[in-house]
Parts: sequence; structure tokens; C-alpha cells
Amino acid sequence: MQKKYLIDEERIPRRWYNIAPDFPEPPAPALHPGTGQPVGPDDLAGLFPMGLIAQEASMERYIDIPDEVREIYRIWRPTPLIRADRLERALGLRDDQRIFFKYEGVSPSGSHKSNTAVPQAYYNREAGVKRLATETGAGQWGSALSMACQIFGLDLTVYMVKVSYQQKPYRRVLMELNGAHVYASPTAHTETGRKALQDDPDTNGSLGLAISEAVEDVVGHPGSKYALGSVLNHVLLHQTVIGEEALEQVGAADAYPDVVIGCVGGGSSFAGIAFPFMRETLAGKAKTRFVGVEPTACPSLTKGVFTYDFGDVGQTTPLLKMYTLGHDFMPAGIHAGGLRYHAMGPLISHAYHLGMMEAVAVPQTKVFAAAQMFMQNEGILPAPESAHAILAAIDEALAAKAAGEARTILFNLTGHGYLDLGAYEQFLAGKLEDYDHPEAAIKAAMEHVPSA
Amino acid sequence: MQKKYLIDEERIPRRWYNIAPDFPEPPAPALHPGTGQPVGPDDLAGLFPMGLIAQEASMERYIDIPDEVREIYRIWRPTPLIRADRLERALGLRDDQRIFFKYEGVSPSGSHKSNTAVPQAYYNREAGVKRLATETGAGQWGSALSMACQIFGLDLTVYMVKVSYQQKPYRRVLMELNGAHVYASPTAHTETGRKALQDDPDTNGSLGLAISEAVEDVVGHPGSKYALGSVLNHVLLHQTVIGEEALEQVGAADAYPDVVIGCVGGGSSFAGIAFPFMRETLAGKAKTRFVGVEPTACPSLTKGVFTYDFGDVGQTTPLLKMYTLGHDFMPAGIHAGGLRYHAMGPLISHAYHLGMMEAVAVPQTKVFAAAQMFMQNEGILPAPESAHAILAAIDEALAAKAAGEARTILFNLTGHGYLDLGAYEQFLAGKLEDYDHPEAAIKAAMEHVPSA
Repeated sequence: MQKKYLIDEERIPRRWYNIAPDFPEPPAPALHPGTGQPVGPDDLAGLFPMGLIAQEASMERYIDIPDEVREIYRIWRPTPLIRADRLERALGLRDDQRIFFKYEGVSPSGSHKSNTAVPQAYYNREAGVKRLATETGAGQWGSALSMACQIFGLDLTVYMVKVSYQQKPYRRVLMELNGAHVYASPTAHTETGRKALQDDPDTNGSLGLAISEAVEDVVGHPGSKYALGSVLNHVLLHQTVIGEEALEQVGAADAYPDVVIGCVGGGSSFAGIAFPFMRETLAGKAKTRFVGVEPTACPSLTKGVFTYDFGDVGQTTPLLKMYTLGHDFMPAGIHAGGLRYHAMGPLISHAYHLGMMEAVAVPQTKVFAAAQMFMQNEGILPAPESAHAILAAIDEALAAKAAGEARTILFNLTGHGYLDLGAYEQFLAGKLEDYDHPEAAIKAAMEHVPSA
Repeated sequence: MQKKYLIDEERIPRRWYNIAPDFPEPPAPALHPGTGQPVGPDDLAGLFPMGLIAQEASMERYIDIPDEVREIYRIWRPTPLIRADRLERALGLRDDQRIFFKYEGVSPSGSHKSNTAVPQAYYNREAGVKRLATETGAGQWGSALSMACQIFGLDLTVYMVKVSYQQKPYRRVLMELNGAHVYASPTAHTETGRKALQDDPDTNGSLGLAISEAVEDVVGHPGSKYALGSVLNHVLLHQTVIGEEALEQVGAADAYPDVVIGCVGGGSSFAGIAFPFMRETLAGKAKTRFVGVEPTACPSLTKGVFTYDFGDVGQTTPLLKMYTLGHDFMPAGIHAGGLRYHAMGPLISHAYHLGMMEAVAVPQTKVFAAAQMFMQNEGILPAPESAHAILAAIDEALAAKAAGEARTILFNLTGHGYLDLGAYEQFLAGKLEDYDHPEAAIKAAMEHVPSA
């Protein structure tokens, strides 16, 4: 039985896939918080270079990947599609109950984040930008962008969510090896940061807060731009290289998926693997279910409200139509830092609203147990974020087994967990907590969302 | 330009290559320390299963890889051969000055150690063994064996060199995730450990000492055997899958190496990449130079003596003919824990004695600088051990550039450094020390070597 499905580097996709024009109804535009009108390119020009702004609003189905970006993609792409045959046997599955995963942990940052970090740095360099500022949660985005900035000669400042900064010191070292400047957010460098520290000096920080700090950092600083690792349309777009490769690989494996599974924080890795398969389903070429997996501690799809909200705590971003828990919802300090975001990217939110996908929320102790089982069988230690998808894939497989049904499952293994061993240590020591009931915190945060 | 040379998993080698019968003169046998006579299988039966003992003394050129071992190899093999084209450009090389590396960091343990851990666990399981004990330096061997033992249902106890236990806590967690029991060596569990703690309660420990503890642990415990991660013939044998794959891949790349480079501690990863190429050279089919790279802090080839010595501090092993610094030489606490061994595997020592290879010793600050340069260009953070080979490869390339000569360089990137970021943090902070002059310590240790 073949385990790994590899493709040659000339098969790295030449185009990103933009799902926006293929939706049965168009997604709602981003709004200017002052005017309530859809934002135009000029409204975003302070934050992003025009190359990315054009992608953000594009209604073209395909966007060419620049040669220079594809050249860098060769460092780790195409990534392997792997059959989890040892996990299948451990679960006692039948031959027609199959689990495949696309493994993005082979990139320089150890996660899918490099797929968008490289083009973002590229378009900024093309626009003459000298310096980027960004936020990072678990540190995967920051690591990815630090490598990309180093390649394209950009200076980088990273606001790293404090709880992750403390839990994952090695992520900071990785960024510093690439020359980045890294600070624990909230910092005293920004107004938003100072206010947050005043309110609660011991705050864990959050992605929403760190975003505010990075945005505040660049506004009004010529030569500086902002970069975001998820949520926005152009970020999701860049990640579709994952699904395009996977489509070719499941063809080689004769294993078109009945269900595609991914973890969801801001939604970019999920979009990356799912959107190309959704295109096939929308075109009537396939019938596939799509499942986004989120933490019970931060359940934006399963418990959030679909409405306009800010992307950040400081209310500095445009208003986006999203499933949100409220822009000042502060998630508990779970170890899947990359999933600690109060809302869900607009394109994912739109797909969920249209019934094109399902969502499920899972607690972290079960996630880590699934991760250990996966590692013992497949020899890869997953990032806690990625392990959310593993748990859901195992649940899907066991449901198929119980029903006696054939099922082919594909999930996105977004990254490795070799920099998350502190979290695994706590898991082994029985010290992980679950945070299953954030309803009161959601209700309080939603009261600050004007449109709700 | 193609960057990655991948081969399908059916091309995983079916046989290991044993260099012993191909040497111009046979290597010296291991001797029983009591009788001074060559050891026979019965002398080793307390430590190893017969399947491995037979390989240790084999004069067959090829040994079949069991199907069950090949089945596990599929998890990560074949590993990629990668052209370091971005590093080449950073060094300003000509088109005919080329650097390739074989990347073993994709395995479950993140290093080449999995190549021998799996067959060692397999042959023990076949022999009805229930439990293994071993030592580990940097923790790569322990991680590899813990995964293999978990797969084959063996219990595992690991004596981890204290300085690494403290520097690399996450390696311990990785082993524990696979169910292993891990102790900082020296421990109070063994006579050798207690004596070492009495002599110096603050000792860093060493591989030689940890080996003694593991050997003492299993002697006289029925159902327990010992496993070693390097040095011995059967370990070097298992690693030849690296070089056999690389031979096929350099063919595909049309890039037969002028020089093959690897780091050397006990010698197994170096043997793994070099021996199949040495076979071609011995057969007159190619002219290739071979360079082993060791730390100045533990320079067994460049400053050791070629004589019979014990493999461990406690003088419990057979006497092996090796380049040695003396079995109780205690190397400084450099971060390349896997290279902190007082001697060099007998087959490597023999090849060096016969002039079939060169050796060079390098200080760790230069090693880490080379590692950072490699990471910034090739997107892979190397283990400190592996980075010794990177530094030598860069030096080879720059020498070819200075001489205006064509040169194709192949080195073995034995593992990733994502669990070594503590060391990189010290490097960035300017806190790494070099240890260039261990002559006095070597002289003192050599006085305890009876044959010297």
C-alpha cells in the first residue's frame, strides 16, 4: 500500500484560486466604520500594498502566482499527501474507510503560514515597502513572515500574544534568527497596548489585541505596512495552493474525499485545503462534506453571531461580516494559540452561512489525546491547532465504522508541534484544562458589537 | 533549476550495505577485556539479540532489510536530496560549484537515528525481548528508539546525558509521549552512576558514562537488552540506507559528488552517507573525497590515538580498536550533544587509519553561524550536530571558489534543530563558548587506556 503521494516541483500550482466569484451569492463587502460604506482601495492603502489590496477585492477566479514566489515555494512545496494507514489500523477501520492528510509542517516555519508569508513579503517589496509590522498568536505566522522578510530584505516587528510568548519562547528565537524584532503583546509601545495593560496588567493578550497594536504601529509611518496571517481574503487565497496540490494527489491515490476537515481560527488553512474542493462540489463534479474544527474555548462558528464586527480589539480595522464572539472577547489561554481569534474570516463565514460547510467545537484535552495517538502511529507530532483536525478526522472515521459505511477522509495537518512540547508536557502531567462554557463572556463581548 | 530530488517509496533500499568485506585490509576484531581474545556471539548475547550480533560480525556485503522494517521506513523514507541553490548564490559560487544535501530531519525523531532504531527494536522483538535500556546524548537517539519501541511493543528506559537533559527538556517529553522512562545520567540507579556522582556531583555526564549505566541496567536482567545508537558495526550498517538512496538521487541530479561530508560523533550518520560512495570509490568507479567533521571540544579523529579502548567509562564493553581520547575523557558541554563521545566507531576509525577519509575539527561558534546562514537561505534549522557538516561544506565550496575549480559537494543534514532553540538563543546572545584545547584532558584520560 502506498503511503506518501509526492508530486514534482514543476507541479507547484501556477495560480491561486479565488472562491469569491463562485459563491451562489456574493459575500458582503467590508465597510468603513465611519461612513458605513464599502471600503475602497484607498481606505486600505495605509495598511497594505496595492498588489494585495487588488487580491482582497478581486472577482477573478484565478490569480497568477509570481515566478519569484513560486521559486521560493520550491523550498518546501509540493507538500506530501500521506495516507494515515497505521492510524487506520489502530482504529480498526475497514479497507474502504480511509484517512489521508496533507502535511504542511515541512515548510520553513513548520506550518502552512509560509504559503502566504512569502507572497505578502513579495508584494510589499515590489511596492517599495521597507518594513512590516504584524501580530502572531502561537508564533507560526511570525516565524513564517520573519523568514519571508529576511528573503525579501524587509525589516519586521512582531507583536506576539503574551500567553504564547511565555509558553513558546523558542518561537521567538526562531523569529530572531531571521532578524525580526519580537515583543510580548500587549506592549507599552501603543495606545491600545497601554490601555489593555491598564485594564489588566496580567492579561494573556489575544490575537485581536495584537492586531490592534500592529495596525497602530504602521499607521502614519511611511515605508511601513501591516501584514495579517489569516482572516482576510488575500490570505485565504494564497493558501489555496494546499488544496490545488491535494486535488492532484487524491487523483493519484484514487481517493477523492467524502469529507474534508481542517481546524479553523481565522480560517486560512481551512480555506486553503477546502476551497478548491468546494469549487468541484459547486460545479457539481463531486459531493464532499466540509468540516471546520474550532476549540470550545473560542467557538466563533458554533456559538458566534453572523454580523459586522471589527477584526481587532482596538476597533481600527474595517468592519467585516463574520461569525464573531465580539471583538473584545478574550479567549482562555488554550495551547492552540493560532485558534484564539474572536471571529472567522469573511469567506469562511459566508460559506458557513450558506450551508456549504459544517462546524464542530472540541475541548483541548481530547485534542491532545488525539495528537498523541496520531504521533504514535504516524510518527509526526502535530501542532495543537492541527490536532483539532486530527480529532475530528478520528471521530469521522469511527462514525463511518459504526455505520458500516465506506468513507474517505482528508484533513489538513497544518504544522508540526516540535515547538509545542511544553504544552504536551502539561498534557502528560494531567495539567491541561478545558474551557467549555464561554457563553457569559461571549454575551458580554457581543454587547460591544454595534451591529449585533 | 530543480531543487528537490525525490524518489518513490518502492525505491527504499531492500538491502543494507556492509563495508567490512570491501576494506583493503580487514578491521581489527573486538576483544574480550578479560581474555584478550576476539569476542564471540556468546560474549554479546547478554546485551544484544542474535539477529544484531550476526550483523555485527558479518562479512556479507549485503544484508536484506526485513519487510516489516521497510514498512516502517515508509513513514519517512526515501528522504529528499536537496540542492542548496540559495546557499550557493549567497556564497557567490559558480554554476559548477554545487552543494547538495541529503535531509534526514523528516523522520519521526527528526534525525537519521530512526534508521537504526526501527531495525534494532524489530530484531529484539523477534528475539522475544520485552524491554530495552539505552543512553542518549542530545536526545535524538532516545526519541528515535522510543518511537520504535512503541511500534514494536517494547518497554524502554533511557539514560540521558545530564547536560542534554537540562538543555533539551523537550526531547524528554517527546520520549515520554512514546511511553519511555527517561533519567538524567549519571543516576543513583547504577554503581557506575553512583561512583560518578560521588566523584563530581555537578558532572555534565557523557555518552560514555550513560552507556555504562544502560549496560549495567540490563546485565543480568532476563528479558532486557541494551541498544546503542552509534559506534557499532550493525548501527553503521543500518544507516547505509541514506547513502544508497543518495547514490540514486545524485544520478537523477547528474551530480556525482567530488566530496562527501558528514559530522562524526560515534560515526553512524557519516557511515550512512559515506560507505555506499566509498564502495564506488574502492571499486574504481569514482573518485570522491570523504570528510568527517568533529567538534574541537571532542576531537577523536584529529587528536585521538588509534588503539584498543573501552566504549564506555565503566569499562563494561568489549575492547574496540578505535581513535580514542580515552574512555574517561569528559568532553565540555557543547550543544552538539550527539558528538560528545570519546572515541569513533571501529569501521570509521579503520577507514580513517587506511587513509580513505579526511577529518577536520571545528569550534561551535562558527558552527552556529553556519547554521544560521543555512537556515536563512534554505529554510531548515539544522541540529547543532548537523551544522558541523554545513560549516565544512561551506568551507569546501569557498575553497573551490578561491581555486576557481568545479566541485560538487554532498553533505548529510542529519536532523533538524527545532528542539535545539535554547542553544540558538545562547548563540544569538553571544553566550556560546568554544573549547579548542582539550589536549591536557586527553593526555590524562589516555593514561587510563591500558593499550596506549
